[in-house]
Amino acid sequence: MSNQEVVILKIRDAEVEKRVDLVAKEEPISIKVNGKRIATLMATPIDLRELAYGFLYSLGLIKQAEDILSISISGSEVEITAGLIKDFSSDEEVLTSGCGKGVVILGYLLGKIDSNLVISTEAILLLMDEFQLKSTGYKTTGGVHSAGISDLLQILDFKEDIGRHNAIDKVIGSFLLQRLSLKDKIMLTSGRITSEVVVKCVRAEIPILISRSSPTDMAITLAEQSGLTLVGFARKKRINLYTHTERIIYIIPK
Amino acid sequence: MSNQEVVILKIRDAEVEKRVDLVAKEEPISIKVNGKRIATLMATPIDLRELAYGFLYSLGLIKQAEDILSISISGSEVEITAGLIKDFSSDEEVLTSGCGKGVVILGYLLGKIDSNLVISTEAILLLMDEFQLKSTGYKTTGGVHSAGISDLLQILDFKEDIGRHNAIDKVIGSFLLQRLSLKDKIMLTSGRITSEVVVKCVRAEIPILISRSSPTDMAITLAEQSGLTLVGFARKKRINLYTHTERIIYIIPK
Repeated sequence: MSNQEVVILKIRDAEVEKRVDLVAKEEPISIKVNGKRIATLMATPIDLRELAYGFLYSLGLIKQAEDILSISISGSEVEITAGLIKDFSSDEEVLTSGCGKGVVILGYLLGKIDSNLVISTEAILLLMDEFQLKSTGYKTTGGVHSAGISDLLQILDFKEDIGRHNAIDKVIGSFLLQRLSLKDKIMLTSGRITSEVVVKCVRAEIPILISRSSPTDMAITLAEQSGLTLVGFARKKRINLYTHTERIIYIIPK
Repeated sequence: MSNQEVVILKIRDAEVEKRVDLVAKEEPISIKVNGKRIATLMATPIDLRELAYGFLYSLGLIKQAEDILSISISGSEVEITAGLIKDFSSDEEVLTSGCGKGVVILGYLLGKIDSNLVISTEAILLLMDEFQLKSTGYKTTGGVHSAGISDLLQILDFKEDIGRHNAIDKVIGSFLLQRLSLKDKIMLTSGRITSEVVVKCVRAEIPILISRSSPTDMAITLAEQSGLTLVGFARKKRINLYTHTERIIYIIPK
């Protein structure tokens, strides 16, 4: 993770102590596509290539890594040349999120996920334990979200960001860059599940989304309609199943 | 809070139970100003008037409640007629946040907070205890953020939303609507402190910002520069002081 040292006063019970603490880095990341700045994301300035790929993909502006012809990153400026699926015209709507980076173009059509992938409740809990162990940024700063991609056995990719959505865009972008399919993968996230998170997973054709946290009603409705298995509050031997439970096998570890 | 009942499968240890659970509501709220849709916020559909006032104010589009000449709310559509400070032209930049609703116009000038307000560490902890007790939405759904405005003694206003930033905009909007100054008030928030949260407080001339959670480095830098007292991790007899500690008096409750 990308952290910054700061000097703070730490108060604990009656003790006041001056000490160096770590906080998460936040920077405005400018995304320029074909010469036009389309967004400035407040993000943690690591994995910017993955962020840019995942962001454009989640927005529905590109369909595959090959749609990006060139990318150059200079400091916090990302410049991309791309053959876009559609024009990013200025009168398109910006939909901003509950708690998330959340620039989503309205009017997209969500596909329907068709997948025979199944996972056991035991595997869910084991994966979330491993996910928790990997979250070093959260442990040191308390200020970042994480996202991971898993096959049923292990966590294949893991990213952190001050932005719940940025972390998700980063792992999706990472898979895009590697030309790997997400159709048989699982998304793990530390953050709350809002509609935009569901949209990102469905667009990437990920059949199962697991969070340590809670979903909103709209996220549940969208997941139900689009065939996504939504799992929440997955921690400490507890799991809530919200939608498409046909992909879940019940085995609980002792 | 605005909650929705959903039927879920709850797994705990080896038990699988079908039950009704509560989740936070999320809805796209369309904000139209002078006939033009300027944003669609994913938000919890309560206190929409406060949300609209606070949102426009935090964006720097209005300076006072009187700048809004009329507002009509129909379902999730908010229509506003306003004398704007500046035109919301389409080529302005959209800066989207780490984890937050986060449409912020770049290039704003942040003022400098000049305030003699002081608060004791004891008062901080007592207020955050009260703030925690008020967070019923979080307790029932685990999926919302809360924001509160306090004088030094009590919590005067309290709002919840799936969006960290929406909750803050709602309490700011509420004060705007009541024509009450925030210059001698304190902002309480459950969420992480990113640059945009600092910007919202400084714009509203709130001198002290207290969060249960952590700040980013950019939030700390902005708070330092603009004269905002930034307090983080305020819970369970612990407090971290990041900036402008001249407004803090050290008294720790036994």
